[in-house]
Amino acid sequence: MERVAIIGAAMTQFGQREGEWITDLLAEAGIDCLEDAGVDANDVEHLYVSNMTSGEFEGQTGVMNALVHDIGAIPAYTKRVDQTSASGGAGIYAAWQSIESGASDMTLLVGGEKMTHRSTSETTDIIASVTHPVEYNAGVTLPSFAGLTARRYLERFDAPRESLGKVAVKNHKNGVDNPHAQFRKEVDLETVLESPIVADPLRLYDFCPITDGSAALLFCPESVAREYTDDYAVVTGVDGATDTQVVHEREEPTVMNGVVESGRGAYEMSGLGPADIDVAELHDMFTILEFLQMEGLGFAEQGAAWKRVEDGDTERDTGELPTNTSGGLKSKGHPLGASGVAQGVEIYEQLVGEAGPRQVDADAGLCCNVGGFGNCVITTIMEAAQ
Amino acid sequence: MERVAIIGAAMTQFGQREGEWITDLLAEAGIDCLEDAGVDANDVEHLYVSNMTSGEFEGQTGVMNALVHDIGAIPAYTKRVDQTSASGGAGIYAAWQSIESGASDMTLLVGGEKMTHRSTSETTDIIASVTHPVEYNAGVTLPSFAGLTARRYLERFDAPRESLGKVAVKNHKNGVDNPHAQFRKEVDLETVLESPIVADPLRLYDFCPITDGSAALLFCPESVAREYTDDYAVVTGVDGATDTQVVHEREEPTVMNGVVESGRGAYEMSGLGPADIDVAELHDMFTILEFLQMEGLGFAEQGAAWKRVEDGDTERDTGELPTNTSGGLKSKGHPLGASGVAQGVEIYEQLVGEAGPRQVDADAGLCCNVGGFGNCVITTIMEAAQ
Repeated sequence: MERVAIIGAAMTQFGQREGEWITDLLAEAGIDCLEDAGVDANDVEHLYVSNMTSGEFEGQTGVMNALVHDIGAIPAYTKRVDQTSASGGAGIYAAWQSIESGASDMTLLVGGEKMTHRSTSETTDIIASVTHPVEYNAGVTLPSFAGLTARRYLERFDAPRESLGKVAVKNHKNGVDNPHAQFRKEVDLETVLESPIVADPLRLYDFCPITDGSAALLFCPESVAREYTDDYAVVTGVDGATDTQVVHEREEPTVMNGVVESGRGAYEMSGLGPADIDVAELHDMFTILEFLQMEGLGFAEQGAAWKRVEDGDTERDTGELPTNTSGGLKSKGHPLGASGVAQGVEIYEQLVGEAGPRQVDADAGLCCNVGGFGNCVITTIMEAAQ
Repeated sequence: MERVAIIGAAMTQFGQREGEWITDLLAEAGIDCLEDAGVDANDVEHLYVSNMTSGEFEGQTGVMNALVHDIGAIPAYTKRVDQTSASGGAGIYAAWQSIESGASDMTLLVGGEKMTHRSTSETTDIIASVTHPVEYNAGVTLPSFAGLTARRYLERFDAPRESLGKVAVKNHKNGVDNPHAQFRKEVDLETVLESPIVADPLRLYDFCPITDGSAALLFCPESVAREYTDDYAVVTGVDGATDTQVVHEREEPTVMNGVVESGRGAYEMSGLGPADIDVAELHDMFTILEFLQMEGLGFAEQGAAWKRVEDGDTERDTGELPTNTSGGLKSKGHPLGASGVAQGVEIYEQLVGEAGPRQVDADAGLCCNVGGFGNCVITTIMEAAQ
């Protein structure tokens, strides 16, 4: 079987996109991605849209059908893929399957979400609807899970509160060099640690913002990729796995089984291990999640991720494992369905040498996209073709 | 590459399921399907949910994560697949890809929707949100498209109004023998033709009802299927295709390009043609759609489907091409995400000889699942293993 290649990538400006619909954002990223790859819309065979909530946020469904029309790709087959905040990762997995199964020789994946036009309380409620009914009806929100988990982590592993803050400082610093990031400003540790409490011990700067935006990737078999370019990336590992959706049933909340299992599958498929990964995009919806993913993916022993962050190992220009070079969800923003695709965009750009001032030296990269509070996680490993 | 087999099927009672959530319905069909196949939940590797609107209808998202928990399939990977009213067909295509690509050796597909707890006007509005914003904002609904198309068809092909009514009569008759159907009562032509006008010339009995329900299918490679049973079905053809979402841009509204293109792809993949199909489930959300699909799939010349219906060719016990032996969406009901899966359940049961009083003699069957007003269509061809 041929390997699955990625030959193009694009993302819109992330942030507040007033006066634009979800369909506008999806079309912008989709068209830019095709242009980036030099592929005509007529050559797209499948077009997948990663999106969680166009119906809830905008009262508009069928956005994938609008997109295939708007970019001129009819009669390409289309569907929407939803895995809550990991819809983008689920889209990557679906696009990979479409190529690997022979169903399509050219699959465009576009992830996007339009969120900022709703109030914060409405938005929080829509996002909280991903939790199990048992917990949703008890009034639980994702930030509350994050606060509880952070407290448990800090106490269990005797980690300093500052270590969480350093994740935010690092990712904001990286975001300055990402022209598409929602926030392009550095923050210092003091600002993070003194920002308003959201879910104790987590504060405002421990959380990603609410964001509008879209991102896209173009997939094809490696033989087709070579017709277009020599600089492409290859998806060599991808897997997804669930953990119980009822978070209070988990044995140990600081261990994310979905991360562990999906990582195991992706490593096995690629033949690589944690030490082979040169750059990683982790799902830092909350700072604590970056620690939990580093540990679940074998980048640190359990309870030791905070030390690697403190030691500077995840810094972009000087670290052994540059992490969230894009700025992460923290500073780049988190338009739900777009985020997993945008992680892929960053790794693709790093592998083909198009990351500009964020460029690191990388032959292999990894994305980890987390749905809900670790309910379902997709891990993807990409390698440079050359 | 191995062929993709289906080794189990189940569906819940379709109708009004008061006091039950979407997650209850999905779990019921999923568990019954595993039991039908004799497969343990722990052996499920991927679990896909076909559902369009759990967030809009129930304020509950992430239902696939709830399901994987509720049936005990953790850490199986899961995602939701949405292609509006063709979400079930899109789920079949996704499940096929998951097996064919080697990503999974056991994929459970569960489609479902919970709709009847909302008012008819709310439901109509949610469903209308699948139309292109240009048309949605003009107040267009799917029934209005159906009425306009039916008028055009009757005039263009000089077809009698009664021929449409006969689709309803036939499908209601078939539904009597389906224990899971929402309506198990025959209707006579007079009742159909004198029922209240909904969208002239279409009347109440030309439309499918609003329905709660769920349906499930279990997919695996053929070599795995043989470990469980000798009586299984094989998906030998499947394809999806779009037509413009902006219906008023179509050259000829009585031709559904998505049907034509997806049918072409499915026939080509299977090596079969229309004459080889022994039984068909068509998406009769409106009676007129049964004609348009018969013609798009080559079961009748353009403008001639109504004659085949008048001639009795699509009758279950006496026709050459029994169509909608399940009762169709018309009498079985149309819980959006479940419908395409339930079409597959009927064809599977016909092929493995489990259709009871509805049983016809069939080696090959076809399902056609229509998203929106033909915005995207998935056609699936299955054959008996033996």
